[in-house]
Amino acid sequence: MHISLSCLSKPILHGYFRSSCSWRVRIAFALKGIEFDQVPVNLIKDGGQQLTDQYKQLNPMQQVPAVHIDGIILSQSLAVIQYLEETRPGPRLLPADPVKRAQVRMVSDIIASGIQPLQNLCVLQKIGAEKAQWAQHFIQRGFEALEPILKETAGKYCIGDEISMADICLVPQVYNADRFKVDVDQFPTIKRLNQTLMELDAFKVSHPSCQPDTPADMRA
Amino acid sequence: MHISLSCLSKPILHGYFRSSCSWRVRIAFALKGIEFDQVPVNLIKDGGQQLTDQYKQLNPMQQVPAVHIDGIILSQSLAVIQYLEETRPGPRLLPADPVKRAQVRMVSDIIASGIQPLQNLCVLQKIGAEKAQWAQHFIQRGFEALEPILKETAGKYCIGDEISMADICLVPQVYNADRFKVDVDQFPTIKRLNQTLMELDAFKVSHPSCQPDTPADMRA
Repeated sequence: MHISLSCLSKPILHGYFRSSCSWRVRIAFALKGIEFDQVPVNLIKDGGQQLTDQYKQLNPMQQVPAVHIDGIILSQSLAVIQYLEETRPGPRLLPADPVKRAQVRMVSDIIASGIQPLQNLCVLQKIGAEKAQWAQHFIQRGFEALEPILKETAGKYCIGDEISMADICLVPQVYNADRFKVDVDQFPTIKRLNQTLMELDAFKVSHPSCQPDTPADMRA
Repeated sequence: MHISLSCLSKPILHGYFRSSCSWRVRIAFALKGIEFDQVPVNLIKDGGQQLTDQYKQLNPMQQVPAVHIDGIILSQSLAVIQYLEETRPGPRLLPADPVKRAQVRMVSDIIASGIQPLQNLCVLQKIGAEKAQWAQHFIQRGFEALEPILKETAGKYCIGDEISMADICLVPQVYNADRFKVDVDQFPTIKRLNQTLMELDAFKVSHPSCQPDTPADMRA
């Protein structure tokens, strides 16, 4: 049997400490107990290291994260997380019940397609001077939709009492909301879920404040 | 055994003829051979029917589509499509191989998170006068990334020779590219895949030009 060397090595996460999509992948690795290496891609330094020809080979979208795993390169955090789910043992990141799985994907996509893309770096750079208000507007709008949905679906976590991909998406988005000064007190369900989740080791060890590339003045 | 009436009735798609995310769901229904009813939500008329309190109950994001199926309401087209995949028989919309499944989700999410959200109606309305150039910029940028990825992954269709969710996302995005005057001739793989897919009945019957709510002057 031929096993390529790349399948035996640890996955490599090309990411950035403060990128919410990189954080999602770090949480998934932590929840599954998978060891991985990190290669920092500084989105600000040198005009943005994600724009180099070298990085463009990894992810033509010129965004983080990109994950080297099992001999392939995957971008798009939810594709990475669901690949881990379908190939790795450990705690489930999607529930067994099809309705709950659909709700997990719905909540994940409200964040990953409905909120985060609008406050992505390449978008804010194009907006220019008004970027803080722009990001605030779309996070506020998204959380106003998410709150009543989570009020229906949540138990201890976003969908019932099992941690899932939806929780993996929620916490980094709340971090972004704080960053852009959206008052999360307006959204009691979101706030309560975030507090509960931030008690967990997988969310703590993956936090932007304690990554290899976190600058000294932003360390916890 | 108790079977609720809602499980016996046809799914209802609340959508709009020209919405690319509604079209994705129509393609999935067609590929799976699932009969469904359509309730038009006119995004322009009356200042936008998606903004009514009644519609907000269905989808707090105030976007289409929302699908009433098996007694629940689902929004987010990829969550709906994967729910159909996991609960309905018929042709697979995701391949069996985990690497290919991941590539399908990666391509789907490049479109659903990386391109489409930036040319969504609520974003273009906020951009105002520059909206056509804005949409063009982000579709162009997205297709420049998608082309080399699809060149690697494509066979007859986006990922190998099996139709998948990635194809369901690609065709409506090419339609949007045409609408915003992005020259698809720049992207030979995207162009070739779109032409091949548009030969198929499931893509034809679901096309924006022939829906119940297509205005007379836009009918094929």
